[in-house]
Amino acid sequence: MTEEPTRRKRAGGRAGMQVRAGTAVIDQMPWRIPVNPDRPTEPLDADGVQRVHKTAMRILRDIGIEFLNPEAVTILKQAGCIVTGTNVRMDEDFVMEMVARAPSTFTITPRNPDREIIMGGNHMVFVNVSSPPNSWDMERGKRSGDFETFKEFMKLTQYFNCIHVAGGYPVEPVDIHASVRHLDCLYEKLTLTDKVVHAYSLGAERVEDVMEMVRIAGGLSEAEFQAKPRMYTNINSVSPLKHDFPMLDGAMRMARRGQPVVVTPFTLAGAMAPVTMSGAVALSIAEALAAVALLQYINPGCPVAIGTFTSNVDMKSGAPAFGTPEYMRATQMTGQLVRFYGVPMRASGVCAANVPDGQAMWETSNSLWSAVQSGTNMVYHAAGWLEGGLIASPEKFVMDCEVLQMIQRYFEEATFATTEDDLAFDAIKEVGPGGHYFGVQHTQDRYQHAFYAPICSDWRNYEAWAIDGAMWTQERAHRIYKQILAEFEAPAMNGDHQEELRQFVAKRKQEGGAPTDF
Amino acid sequence: MTEEPTRRKRAGGRAGMQVRAGTAVIDQMPWRIPVNPDRPTEPLDADGVQRVHKTAMRILRDIGIEFLNPEAVTILKQAGCIVTGTNVRMDEDFVMEMVARAPSTFTITPRNPDREIIMGGNHMVFVNVSSPPNSWDMERGKRSGDFETFKEFMKLTQYFNCIHVAGGYPVEPVDIHASVRHLDCLYEKLTLTDKVVHAYSLGAERVEDVMEMVRIAGGLSEAEFQAKPRMYTNINSVSPLKHDFPMLDGAMRMARRGQPVVVTPFTLAGAMAPVTMSGAVALSIAEALAAVALLQYINPGCPVAIGTFTSNVDMKSGAPAFGTPEYMRATQMTGQLVRFYGVPMRASGVCAANVPDGQAMWETSNSLWSAVQSGTNMVYHAAGWLEGGLIASPEKFVMDCEVLQMIQRYFEEATFATTEDDLAFDAIKEVGPGGHYFGVQHTQDRYQHAFYAPICSDWRNYEAWAIDGAMWTQERAHRIYKQILAEFEAPAMNGDHQEELRQFVAKRKQEGGAPTDF
Repeated sequence: MTEEPTRRKRAGGRAGMQVRAGTAVIDQMPWRIPVNPDRPTEPLDADGVQRVHKTAMRILRDIGIEFLNPEAVTILKQAGCIVTGTNVRMDEDFVMEMVARAPSTFTITPRNPDREIIMGGNHMVFVNVSSPPNSWDMERGKRSGDFETFKEFMKLTQYFNCIHVAGGYPVEPVDIHASVRHLDCLYEKLTLTDKVVHAYSLGAERVEDVMEMVRIAGGLSEAEFQAKPRMYTNINSVSPLKHDFPMLDGAMRMARRGQPVVVTPFTLAGAMAPVTMSGAVALSIAEALAAVALLQYINPGCPVAIGTFTSNVDMKSGAPAFGTPEYMRATQMTGQLVRFYGVPMRASGVCAANVPDGQAMWETSNSLWSAVQSGTNMVYHAAGWLEGGLIASPEKFVMDCEVLQMIQRYFEEATFATTEDDLAFDAIKEVGPGGHYFGVQHTQDRYQHAFYAPICSDWRNYEAWAIDGAMWTQERAHRIYKQILAEFEAPAMNGDHQEELRQFVAKRKQEGGAPTDF
Repeated sequence: MTEEPTRRKRAGGRAGMQVRAGTAVIDQMPWRIPVNPDRPTEPLDADGVQRVHKTAMRILRDIGIEFLNPEAVTILKQAGCIVTGTNVRMDEDFVMEMVARAPSTFTITPRNPDREIIMGGNHMVFVNVSSPPNSWDMERGKRSGDFETFKEFMKLTQYFNCIHVAGGYPVEPVDIHASVRHLDCLYEKLTLTDKVVHAYSLGAERVEDVMEMVRIAGGLSEAEFQAKPRMYTNINSVSPLKHDFPMLDGAMRMARRGQPVVVTPFTLAGAMAPVTMSGAVALSIAEALAAVALLQYINPGCPVAIGTFTSNVDMKSGAPAFGTPEYMRATQMTGQLVRFYGVPMRASGVCAANVPDGQAMWETSNSLWSAVQSGTNMVYHAAGWLEGGLIASPEKFVMDCEVLQMIQRYFEEATFATTEDDLAFDAIKEVGPGGHYFGVQHTQDRYQHAFYAPICSDWRNYEAWAIDGAMWTQERAHRIYKQILAEFEAPAMNGDHQEELRQFVAKRKQEGGAPTDF
């Protein structure tokens, strides 16, 4: 018997375009904030943690960080740091005093308070893919990001209960002028989703506009807005050893209004960081702590988190690699350091693959499980990322959500509980040798929720699967994504708030939005 | 811009049939016995381990195990167990006394002593896919196993340094009569590979023939053969609570000649085991310990290992599921129990997927990482498994070897070392803010071996990948598998030993091989 899997695949792809009548929405897990019960995987012993920490401290004291923002430099000079031009050096006592001010746990409350997330402790939340310039899907292939595609990803972000945060733009909508892009995007994000949203720290106007839009969407006074975290920003250093102007500006604006800042150096070992992983981690930690110290000096106790994005390059081609063994260890080591500093941690779900194939899933699995193993609290790019972050894919989004749901189920105590009921001695006695468990009461009482129920995996045997179209994973994911879009309903929103939001966007557009230099 | 990924895929598939001139063999990692440095992930606390253990002891004492082998029953009666027909009950003192006799670590030495493996401690070895009736590849689709395909998989097993053991038949060669199949298969296995081999415990003649063939292939006297482990068998219980005749017979024959027996109950929660995972683990442990006790009574100190194969069924369809969250937790819990008993542990690399797609790799990743997390020493089916063990696939074999190599690299201390050289303070100072690390001596000294180098992953950007054929992972794996077969050279073998082996096979064939009842 022979067959042509690729021809079948094509048929599957076409079938995927049609939404069959009577198909129910997928049976996904309910919304929850997952709690990770596992002890983290710790490659470093206590001495190893100290050695990385002390190296970060030496970097901050002896080499210094470039702060390309005069206001930040002035503030750090006031704080007693040694300033030489844009170079700022700070000693361990200052850094540790500032870091100690940061809360170990905080919440972020979006317009729908039921979607509040917890950052810190054993809690873990998942964020959609953020910032690719391009999208790819089975139907249309690779193309530049546009506003319609942006909205599609916002619908997926809202639909999946295992996605807790509407992070950055899933694709950059280049068909909207950069001056007003943040206004259109945030309007859609705030109306198509009711989850925690993010502001890019790319200029004062953008940050201030987004904060204002989040305040309006939540129907909040300025005092209510500032009273607790309502949104967040993520800033990246320009590794090695630089923080640029707009990122620092946005971070300081957010910190002053009590809104969380995630500081995530992006270091590729062998390129903008040492070729050795602990060295790359030490550099990354130094850069993150420098920004944390600044923000804690400005607003003591303001919510911050430290992110890791330390991977390596392919030394043959210089191409970035993701989800590698080195990436996993860097994430685990960063987890140990961040716990030492006592602040929440961010990591990512990443891969270098260009399409949602086997490589995409082993790389993404490696990165997601290393997030679990490192005690990460916030997982960026948890669904939808391809090509090292240059592509967002709806099929990959669905496939990743299957993995995220499995992680959530893996966390449930039911999978490893040892009550008398779980140990099931009486059922084992009742069934006896050679019997079958399906018929016994112990099974009947539990079978509906005993095991993880997949959304995209096909567990049928080959023949049943082949007769039904022989669809590979990406084709099933394609069908699911189309079906979700077809049946999507936006979450309820207070009409007055929505109208005020609309008017704000119109006004700001009339004013020209944010300045652009092109 | 649009494109048709499936058409490109087809093109890639065709291109995969040709081996391009001048293409070097893949640059794989060298042979080694990996050592797992991580502390295991332990879902159970000490009390939980005791509760599962005590449940297993209650099962053995109060319910008993069916031993469908009169010789085994007689021996266990002699040993003081309570026998009622084929039902054997044993108490904790006896079980623990017997288990305490088993070595915590042993070696297995194949005909090439450089391929010796270590079973136990933190060592971890990988075994090829074993026992599927069918094969599937990109070119020929799904078809029944045959001898030529068997040989193809033997070549892959030998080729990959990350595969340490030539386990069971990668496909069942149904074109060879069952009476002589073991003779032909073992001849090929012993000449196409020089790695540790396995004997199926499926009848006295088969087990004795394979032992004799391993002795001959190694050029060993009977005394030399028995002096240390040279091969092994794996037996499965018939869950719940039964051990069948041939498996026990083979296990006893192997134990008497000092050859290792891996005891692996195959329990699917909700079918042949309780629907609750700790109950399924307790049942599995009871079944395994019963066989271990028998073997240790027969030959005190003989090498044994306990295997786990506890997964769950899909409660909607009854289909077996693999690589699920429940599977991961069952494997981790079993690891805790097996460490408590102090013997080596076996687990598996498994999936329910029918083709080497995204689902195949997230399920396989889940199972392989849970093997790492559980401190597993021997990973069965580590490369090539599909459709819950009903299909062996060469593309999946190559893809899995990439994951296995990444696990090996993940274990290397270089990925988390914190020497002064690794921490790289001087390099960080030398490069300074905004510089690049590629040019510095610290990088130049290390770049060739700094990071994991993939064999099948494509880390190029989308455009470079698309121009080169837009091959999905399975297509690249297909090309690699064809290339390996085209360039395969069998390992050297002593001509006298090979001739003696050939004569033994001819003689045993003339005698009719093993009896069959069909």
